[in-house]
Amino acid sequence: MKRILIIGAGRSSSSLTGYLLEHASEYHWKITVGDLDIEAAQQRIGGNVNLVEFDIQQEEKSSIAIQQADLVISMLPAKFHILVAKLCLKHRKNLLTPSYVKEEMKSLEPEIKQQGLFFLNEMGLDPGIDHMSAMREIDAIKEAGFELLGFESFTGGLVAPESDNNPWHYKLTWNPRNVVLAGQEGTVKFRQEGKYKYIPYNRVFRRTELIEIEGFGTFEGYANRDSLKYIDRYQLQDIPTIYRGTLRRPGFCRAWNVFVQLGMTDDSYEMDGLKHMTRRDFTNSFLYYHPTDSVETKLYHDQNIPQDSDIIGKLKWLGIFDNVPIGMEHGTPAQVLEHILKDKWKLSPNDKDMIVMWHKFTYRNQQTPDIVEKHLSLVVTGEDPINTAMAKTVGLPLGIAAKFIPTIPEIYNPVLGELEQLGIQFSSK
Amino acid sequence: MKRILIIGAGRSSSSLTGYLLEHASEYHWKITVGDLDIEAAQQRIGGNVNLVEFDIQQEEKSSIAIQQADLVISMLPAKFHILVAKLCLKHRKNLLTPSYVKEEMKSLEPEIKQQGLFFLNEMGLDPGIDHMSAMREIDAIKEAGFELLGFESFTGGLVAPESDNNPWHYKLTWNPRNVVLAGQEGTVKFRQEGKYKYIPYNRVFRRTELIEIEGFGTFEGYANRDSLKYIDRYQLQDIPTIYRGTLRRPGFCRAWNVFVQLGMTDDSYEMDGLKHMTRRDFTNSFLYYHPTDSVETKLYHDQNIPQDSDIIGKLKWLGIFDNVPIGMEHGTPAQVLEHILKDKWKLSPNDKDMIVMWHKFTYRNQQTPDIVEKHLSLVVTGEDPINTAMAKTVGLPLGIAAKFIPTIPEIYNPVLGELEQLGIQFSSK
Repeated sequence: MKRILIIGAGRSSSSLTGYLLEHASEYHWKITVGDLDIEAAQQRIGGNVNLVEFDIQQEEKSSIAIQQADLVISMLPAKFHILVAKLCLKHRKNLLTPSYVKEEMKSLEPEIKQQGLFFLNEMGLDPGIDHMSAMREIDAIKEAGFELLGFESFTGGLVAPESDNNPWHYKLTWNPRNVVLAGQEGTVKFRQEGKYKYIPYNRVFRRTELIEIEGFGTFEGYANRDSLKYIDRYQLQDIPTIYRGTLRRPGFCRAWNVFVQLGMTDDSYEMDGLKHMTRRDFTNSFLYYHPTDSVETKLYHDQNIPQDSDIIGKLKWLGIFDNVPIGMEHGTPAQVLEHILKDKWKLSPNDKDMIVMWHKFTYRNQQTPDIVEKHLSLVVTGEDPINTAMAKTVGLPLGIAAKFIPTIPEIYNPVLGELEQLGIQFSSK
Repeated sequence: MKRILIIGAGRSSSSLTGYLLEHASEYHWKITVGDLDIEAAQQRIGGNVNLVEFDIQQEEKSSIAIQQADLVISMLPAKFHILVAKLCLKHRKNLLTPSYVKEEMKSLEPEIKQQGLFFLNEMGLDPGIDHMSAMREIDAIKEAGFELLGFESFTGGLVAPESDNNPWHYKLTWNPRNVVLAGQEGTVKFRQEGKYKYIPYNRVFRRTELIEIEGFGTFEGYANRDSLKYIDRYQLQDIPTIYRGTLRRPGFCRAWNVFVQLGMTDDSYEMDGLKHMTRRDFTNSFLYYHPTDSVETKLYHDQNIPQDSDIIGKLKWLGIFDNVPIGMEHGTPAQVLEHILKDKWKLSPNDKDMIVMWHKFTYRNQQTPDIVEKHLSLVVTGEDPINTAMAKTVGLPLGIAAKFIPTIPEIYNPVLGELEQLGIQFSSK
């Protein structure tokens, strides 16, 4: 009997839990889900799973739950993984997460190894499926004796075309806080044609490029975090171009950039006097004072937005000019913006989301010497607002990996193989 | 005999040391200056002072020097004051600094009080003279029974008109690192006509205003840090407008904003491949890739700078397009930019600097009820690149305060009084 503890029954946990439950008898798994709010978790996940109250901030109680598991899967917001990891280390348990490895997590490596434990991070969609699918292709290109000249990779969690009914062409399919803070994880770094390139937060949403995916239309991509660290990880020391990005529908970034420029995504301070402010006041607090100009006029003027721009429709649709109380007593600008977006960008009961991943590999056949461009794309559509494509693509790799841990260190082939059987399959061009 | 230890013999220490030495016999002071580099300190300060090697990072040696003092004046870069403060607390010594009080320093307050010690921060120019001169005026306005409607205050460390011979109309008169990082201390906050206003870093250098000071011409002011915290400190709870800013000559901010926008002032990461880069490569790493466009063309296009803009002359004059090696092996963008500026904005042997401070008080006579605007300005010109106006205005308040510590808690009258005798005098309009 292998006891698996899933911590966090949030948006991305449903498919993971479903997968594990489905295979529980076959693999002799005993599944427990821990969450702050048992009732909400039950509603989301259903009744046929062992649910326990779990609060990672309470170390003693958390320790007991973790001690009773053989494998822990953390689906908490990324910043909490390190707390889970420390307890796993203390109680000698293996750990899976779908999130980026941060410095603090990395620093545990020697101890993890020493204890003979297996911690596998970045085993979701992005990071996760992106790594595995890229590495499989890169290995194949190298094996064929080709020289890799460029690797670009984009992923986006979007709304399916049939449910796309707002001017942003976007709805929330994962933690809305991450959407508001996107781009603030550090300066964007990448390499292009052999040159190092850096983009500060205030430029990220203007330095976009358009990407066409056959059958799914046009997307825009903005650069995502530090692509340079993948040079070593993917063993691509000499690659002239490496770039990772995020996909949105065209027009999203230019409008989102207004929030970035005005400081509405700032999470570094609590706003004063929030209790008595309307959404309109909130917007106005980022604009210059003028005795007579309207908030709208000031914003368009300040941000140089022409009267006939589609940005105006997007902003108005979100209600940032409405004389409606914000309904928060305390909060950072980012938290207020999240509060506004959460309502507006919510998936309706019949909505479907869509995951899009797109890789571009450029390589040279040293014999001929033709330069070849190969595109790989993955598009997954969700079933409903609970069983989303996001939950599937984040959760299933973790569930599949749970089967192989800790026995198989080389994990991409079995995981990708089974994902394909589950309908998560790349197309290549 | 009162033993005074000055830590740090940097740019702003010369006037302080001179002042203390001049009054040493009268006040029975024994002056010691501690610095990392004794030789450089000797050159700057002269021979007739007791010099000791001092490295705040070496706790044991630092403790010995501090134990031998009755009063410590820290002239180190601001981030080191907290280390000095902790040693002063440990060894029960009084402390003076010219820098802003940060959270960590504030948290020591109960212990400072309990020990009966006297720590006085913000006793330089800005913060320092600005507080004292503002409070004196505010107290007078309140005492006269007027209602204060607005307080705006601007300070700038500039170059004197007779030494102003570069297109930026700026030279370095204090720690160049602070100039590069200006505006990055947190979101700008202020109140205007009763409304809270916030400005993120990427907008600070575009939201400027012009200020005319009779006899000295036009300046531009950009907002400085959190003005809201002065509402409580100055006891101005109901004031509709409070705003603090920094002065430059017109045109500076718009050109500086190019560096901000491109990410050249980013201090959060070390650049890759710096060793082999020229200044032109440095600039290019913040611009999009293009197979044929020049770095200049890309920058002007990216930043929307017209061909005939004066920004172009400013940027070219700094040499950021030059094919000259940077000459650094490691560094953040901010450190590289500082390295470039340090050469170009250096005071020449015959150069004089200039300090400008400008306060605007708006108040209403509740009887009449006229609204009155009162301007106070202070302009101080330096003597040479060592005895700068900056060194005077930062150092002299500390030196004067040294006389009153720890006997007089209300300090502004004696300090301002004596500053006036020393020629640092406000004009009012």
